[in-house]
Amino acid sequence: MADSAPQPNLAGSVTMRGEGMNRIETFVAAAFAFAVTMLVISVGSIPQSFEEFVLALKTIPAFAASFAVIVWIWHAHATWCRRYGLEDGMSIFLSSLLVFLVLIYIYPLRLMMQSLFHFLSDGALPFIFPLKTLEQARFMFTFYGIGFLCVGLNFIGLYRYALRRQEPLALSPYEVTEARYDVHVWVVAVCISLLSLILAWVLPAQWLSLAGFTYFLLFPCYTVLDNRHRKALAAIAVQD
Amino acid sequence: MADSAPQPNLAGSVTMRGEGMNRIETFVAAAFAFAVTMLVISVGSIPQSFEEFVLALKTIPAFAASFAVIVWIWHAHATWCRRYGLEDGMSIFLSSLLVFLVLIYIYPLRLMMQSLFHFLSDGALPFIFPLKTLEQARFMFTFYGIGFLCVGLNFIGLYRYALRRQEPLALSPYEVTEARYDVHVWVVAVCISLLSLILAWVLPAQWLSLAGFTYFLLFPCYTVLDNRHRKALAAIAVQD
Amino acid sequence: MADSAPQPNLAGSVTMRGEGMNRIETFVAAAFAFAVTMLVISVGSIPQSFEEFVLALKTIPAFAASFAVIVWIWHAHATWCRRYGLEDGMSIFLSSLLVFLVLIYIYPLRLMMQSLFHFLSDGALPFIFPLKTLEQARFMFTFYGIGFLCVGLNFIGLYRYALRRQEPLALSPYEVTEARYDVHVWVVAVCISLLSLILAWVLPAQWLSLAGFTYFLLFPCYTVLDNRHRKALAAIAVQD
Amino acid sequence: MADSAPQPNLAGSVTMRGEGMNRIETFVAAAFAFAVTMLVISVGSIPQSFEEFVLALKTIPAFAASFAVIVWIWHAHATWCRRYGLEDGMSIFLSSLLVFLVLIYIYPLRLMMQSLFHFLSDGALPFIFPLKTLEQARFMFTFYGIGFLCVGLNFIGLYRYALRRQEPLALSPYEVTEARYDVHVWVVAVCISLLSLILAWVLPAQWLSLAGFTYFLLFPCYTVLDNRHRKALAAIAVQD
Repeated sequence: MADSAPQPNLAGSVTMRGEGMNRIETFVAAAFAFAVTMLVISVGSIPQSFEEFVLALKTIPAFAASFAVIVWIWHAHATWCRRYGLEDGMSIFLSSLLVFLVLIYIYPLRLMMQSLFHFLSDGALPFIFPLKTLEQARFMFTFYGIGFLCVGLNFIGLYRYALRRQEPLALSPYEVTEARYDVHVWVVAVCISLLSLILAWVLPAQWLSLAGFTYFLLFPCYTVLDNRHRKALAAIAVQD
Repeated sequence: MADSAPQPNLAGSVTMRGEGMNRIETFVAAAFAFAVTMLVISVGSIPQSFEEFVLALKTIPAFAASFAVIVWIWHAHATWCRRYGLEDGMSIFLSSLLVFLVLIYIYPLRLMMQSLFHFLSDGALPFIFPLKTLEQARFMFTFYGIGFLCVGLNFIGLYRYALRRQEPLALSPYEVTEARYDVHVWVVAVCISLLSLILAWVLPAQWLSLAGFTYFLLFPCYTVLDNRHRKALAAIAVQD
Repeated sequence: MADSAPQPNLAGSVTMRGEGMNRIETFVAAAFAFAVTMLVISVGSIPQSFEEFVLALKTIPAFAASFAVIVWIWHAHATWCRRYGLEDGMSIFLSSLLVFLVLIYIYPLRLMMQSLFHFLSDGALPFIFPLKTLEQARFMFTFYGIGFLCVGLNFIGLYRYALRRQEPLALSPYEVTEARYDVHVWVVAVCISLLSLILAWVLPAQWLSLAGFTYFLLFPCYTVLDNRHRKALAAIAVQD
Repeated sequence: MADSAPQPNLAGSVTMRGEGMNRIETFVAAAFAFAVTMLVISVGSIPQSFEEFVLALKTIPAFAASFAVIVWIWHAHATWCRRYGLEDGMSIFLSSLLVFLVLIYIYPLRLMMQSLFHFLSDGALPFIFPLKTLEQARFMFTFYGIGFLCVGLNFIGLYRYALRRQEPLALSPYEVTEARYDVHVWVVAVCISLLSLILAWVLPAQWLSLAGFTYFLLFPCYTVLDNRHRKALAAIAVQD
């Protein structure tokens, strides 16, 4: 409801303070659009024969999953911009940092998704990145864990910054609840990536893939969090 | 008429609810702009001699046709954004899916256009993608058919979603008729791609190219549809 | 003066009807920005040694000249958008066509500028595109001539379209004069490219480079045109 | 304070004349977004093995530093646009020139940062660009010095242009002080690059790296400048 078309600021709605796009958002949108395009159109690998073409098709599931993750991050940032309309030094710093993190993680993300689909399809889908030792596999999971952790901390920073500015922004109680919910969303993401990081170093070789599957815990956690959030919003609505 | 510069909301006009560009549109515009640029400026193939330059020139017709298709899809999406100004979860999901589909289909589209111009020019224009067996050719037509089908279903989804929200958007009867017309436009596209898909598997080898030429049926179908639409709009204008 | 910051619509000023950027402009800006970026950052040619770096530096003058031409075209289009704010079918068609022309011409433009600086620097600046026969050189000049001709015709089309819509746009006499001036600007560009085209085929080998230098006629022609235009505007101001 | 969310124009605040993004900014944002993306996603170097991946990770510090410099320049330009909202010929010329300078310097910047981190990490971080002679090293520092000098002169030009237009823009005394401060910021940058340029040619081989470390003088200089600026602003606030 909070995310639909602009509405008057009733109790139970979020005022969109950043209706017009600002400079950060255009910069972020262009960088993200460019990044996802590069994910697909790998210039060096335009298929030159039918066989290469079929091989390229087999990377579509991994691409789709990576694309979804990037769009999720972009959307989370766009929602933040739209709600608070902040364009000051800290907002620009955190937004630039987010672009930086995404740019660094874009190819590794695709790699991880390829390994996931390689695993799920029992080898039918390709994975072109041979890991030779157990330590290399542990390193990869560590690298992804740190990346996801940083993205999570970045969003916690963005929402906490908005909460710290709740007076000049004149956030309603409803909006404060909304912002706190978003902090919790990303705290969960940070906890799960910490869990994955630990598992990447304590699990024996045959269970190591669990360090990757840990991220699927996001789905049940977010369902629980979302239910609790709806109840909290309902309680505020009753108060008014 | 509905598509010209903003007008007051008289009977027979469409209110532009999304005059200011929103985040989805900037993201989509940047991704599409990047995609068409990549179509032309294939980094790996900057001509280094006069002969290569002339060869590059011969791909211009196929590029022009692919460019026109991408701009058509972009324009269809931009019109949808401008009319309804929706920026909620479903709009972002469907718009991202569209970007995803276009990015996957951009090089194959160019390939198909090259094969078309290779055929039409009786071999004077180049086609650098050898298909060796009949099954490979059937596969290519199937792949394109599915892609075009998905783009069509995506637009049907976008317009049906706008129609489902006609109350909060306060669509006028004129605008409802307009939205339904756009659903029909894409239903026709879906039917034609289904026909092409069937032909790709039932036609004998010597007639297989008809599976590709099926898409030219779009032109007469759209002429008929457009005429019927004008009459429907005239009928509404009379009622007022 | 017409081109400076927004002013109230006094006699002698131009109303900016497209203050907010529309979809075409974002698409065009992204495509042009990407195109100029690709001009410089030729992915395949990141210098790997000091010698390659120095060679790359020698292409800067040609890059600067190409960059200036692209920015000129982009600026001319942005001015048109800003003045008339048109976003209908014909505007999108002509704007897309302009993007298409620029994308096709971006690498050849750089090539032509390289040959110019190679010539002006008496061989000190590099030109990596050997032309072996006289016919090849004539072909190159013809190709550039046609491209510049098409860009010119495209802009004539854009301004004539704005003039045809002068009633719904409510153009003032001042603005009509301004639009007509811009038509003349591009008619001059078209005439000069026609002259270059003719020279490319009638000049003997030793004078062929004159077909390229013809484009420098733009500078004196625009000075004359600009003076006449100022007088015409002064005459309108007197009438009011 | 001047850089935070829009505020009413009290004494001690800056009116944002360019709240809506204009065409130059979108063009600049898109070009810069592409440029930073290209910095990371070097198409030709997608890691194909674990060893290449680890090597790619080692370039992250140099990338982060280059990214920060580009974002700094972009932000400085975006702030200028937002404060003065100028979109005339001179603004477009200076903004285009800035894009041009950044595009030329983007890979060399990364190179210089690599050499810095190579030096700081005592060779643990890679530097893939062998300089063989002392003259080559002097040349590189000269090249960077000139580039930074040009960026600084460009910004001095932008702020001086805004000051020259202070009457039509109706700049308050507070805003004039603010603009003058920004001129000083870039005069310092120009002086430091001049100092680096001189050092690059007078220092003996063993001290040559000091020509690069000269740029770290920016940090203390900006601290001093910022303190003086705060006092000047306080003095104005007292006058009101």
